[in-house]
Amino acid sequence: MQPYWSTHFMLPGQEHAHAQAIGEALDHAREGVAMLAGCDPFEVVFTSGGTESNNLAILGSLAQTASGHLLVSSMEHESVLAAVDSLADGPWEIETIPADSNGLVDPDQVASLLRPNTRLVAVQAANPVTGTIQSIREIADLVHNRGVHFHCDATQVFGKIPFDVSQMRADSMALSGHKFYGPKGSGALYVRRGLQVAPIAYGEPREMGLRPGAENVPGCIGIGAAARLASKCVVDAEANLRQLRDRFISGLRCVIDPEPVIVCEDVSALPNTVAVELPLEANLVQKSARELVFATALSSAPADEMTRSLQAIGKQPDQIRRTARFSFGWTTSRDQIDRSVDLIAEAWDASK
Amino acid sequence: MQPYWSTHFMLPGQEHAHAQAIGEALDHAREGVAMLAGCDPFEVVFTSGGTESNNLAILGSLAQTASGHLLVSSMEHESVLAAVDSLADGPWEIETIPADSNGLVDPDQVASLLRPNTRLVAVQAANPVTGTIQSIREIADLVHNRGVHFHCDATQVFGKIPFDVSQMRADSMALSGHKFYGPKGSGALYVRRGLQVAPIAYGEPREMGLRPGAENVPGCIGIGAAARLASKCVVDAEANLRQLRDRFISGLRCVIDPEPVIVCEDVSALPNTVAVELPLEANLVQKSARELVFATALSSAPADEMTRSLQAIGKQPDQIRRTARFSFGWTTSRDQIDRSVDLIAEAWDASK
Repeated sequence: MQPYWSTHFMLPGQEHAHAQAIGEALDHAREGVAMLAGCDPFEVVFTSGGTESNNLAILGSLAQTASGHLLVSSMEHESVLAAVDSLADGPWEIETIPADSNGLVDPDQVASLLRPNTRLVAVQAANPVTGTIQSIREIADLVHNRGVHFHCDATQVFGKIPFDVSQMRADSMALSGHKFYGPKGSGALYVRRGLQVAPIAYGEPREMGLRPGAENVPGCIGIGAAARLASKCVVDAEANLRQLRDRFISGLRCVIDPEPVIVCEDVSALPNTVAVELPLEANLVQKSARELVFATALSSAPADEMTRSLQAIGKQPDQIRRTARFSFGWTTSRDQIDRSVDLIAEAWDASK
Repeated sequence: MQPYWSTHFMLPGQEHAHAQAIGEALDHAREGVAMLAGCDPFEVVFTSGGTESNNLAILGSLAQTASGHLLVSSMEHESVLAAVDSLADGPWEIETIPADSNGLVDPDQVASLLRPNTRLVAVQAANPVTGTIQSIREIADLVHNRGVHFHCDATQVFGKIPFDVSQMRADSMALSGHKFYGPKGSGALYVRRGLQVAPIAYGEPREMGLRPGAENVPGCIGIGAAARLASKCVVDAEANLRQLRDRFISGLRCVIDPEPVIVCEDVSALPNTVAVELPLEANLVQKSARELVFATALSSAPADEMTRSLQAIGKQPDQIRRTARFSFGWTTSRDQIDRSVDLIAEAWDASK
């Protein structure tokens, strides 16, 4: 990204050679994202992040439709739920697809909820709190075969598990750069060739007319490079992350008694994510183990992402307060895992 | 920005110390932008750029209003015009404020166009093609005294002339980071305390509830640092740029006969911008002087920014084709100005 902040600071779109060189660099970045997403480069729209991608897919595709029925899973990210909710005052019937206690959405239930006027179904690829991986291919096929737009918020999976639309068949799919080691402020939306989407912001037509405003050139370069890297190393990364996750869970089970509950343990889950229901309040651990960085539920009104995801799988307030969500990365070491277990054990001992 | 890509990669909003440190860095960046904009830090919303800032100011402030009259100058950026045009199908009367042949909007004419149901007036601080600087203080006072929201797209002025809302009194004001040496993909919107604005995208509430999505932390750090720098050096920069501009114009007049027309020469203009009507087609110069980077009109349907601005001041297609827009920066040297004049002279000689 570095030269695009300084010497290559132009924008594409002018006649001169400098601008054209920037255009070519953006094309190369777009090919990188297309490689990761499993689509053609012209199906990739650069955005400012996952939230904008989800908003564009949902609100942009419904802009040219007068009314209808929308199906959204209860495990979705706030940017999906809130985008759909923004339509609640209009001529839309909005229905939630429930998840089971493992966070799973049942494809047959999705099929049974489809109506003749269903315009959109949104189910995320994986949940960032519970790690639950959905049966996207099955859901996509059922929805797609009924001629309904299937949107998949896939922001959590890239760089963690192999996943692309050539296999998963979504009509639109959101990516977030910083979730796979790209820059913050970068995102992309896969829009299947032929899917009608209108822009949701207004200005100079850029990004195939779907996203106005000066391109964040370094951000696009960054997400493109990160996408190439994630494509290459995801198989190894997944295997490594899964070992770390198993080691972490085994470690916790050894040092904490009563044994902590691993949230959504019985389903296919992200290899880098684990939510643990501890026998003590999670923020006590956070306070006594400052070296350890992890997420806890912060607010139930308005409910934050962690609270909402845990509520969606039936957890009670007392359980939610005791839940800590840990995540690992490509550079996490076994020593860091072991040290994390030690820190949690110390906090547990101190609190007894 | 560098450490915020790597070691300080967290987002604000969690309890742990790392997240809180990021929150403090963002506060510092917000103070930098507030210093430049002449407002309080809590009146600054970080966005992904000038286009989003203009969209948020216009569509976000009108979201809670059922109908009304909107006044927009003919010199505005596409992100202002298109945001307003997106309302054209609804219960809105949209009216254009004309500009004179120098690109100037007459404050008295703005006052005469105000109606009892006017909800918004939008006039840019300065035009990026003609350089024309508007009488923002006079317009803002007239509009504000009638209780109407005055929005100013001020993306062109920062780092070039002293300008802030403590003097200019807009109710909302758009900034674009890369226009004053901040990063691409960064922007900000000043929202006057008390002005009602709703978000135009949906997700986790961030930025005082006005802009959802993970913060582009390095981008915010970058625009904050650039804003501090621009605050400090704008007086010297303006003087230096104005000398360069005068030198460039004198040079062109010496080497081209018939003398080129300086567009909007008779008004107060940006010190770094000059549009010149040459005696030959501007893209011929662009083709023969590849070393020189400048803007030409590219498309009349749809009209690009240069074409629209020149049309708005009454230029004919033949004149627009002969117009070249040059801009200078803080690091532009006298030698570069002289070399530019030489290149244009050579292109002119070759074309005769």
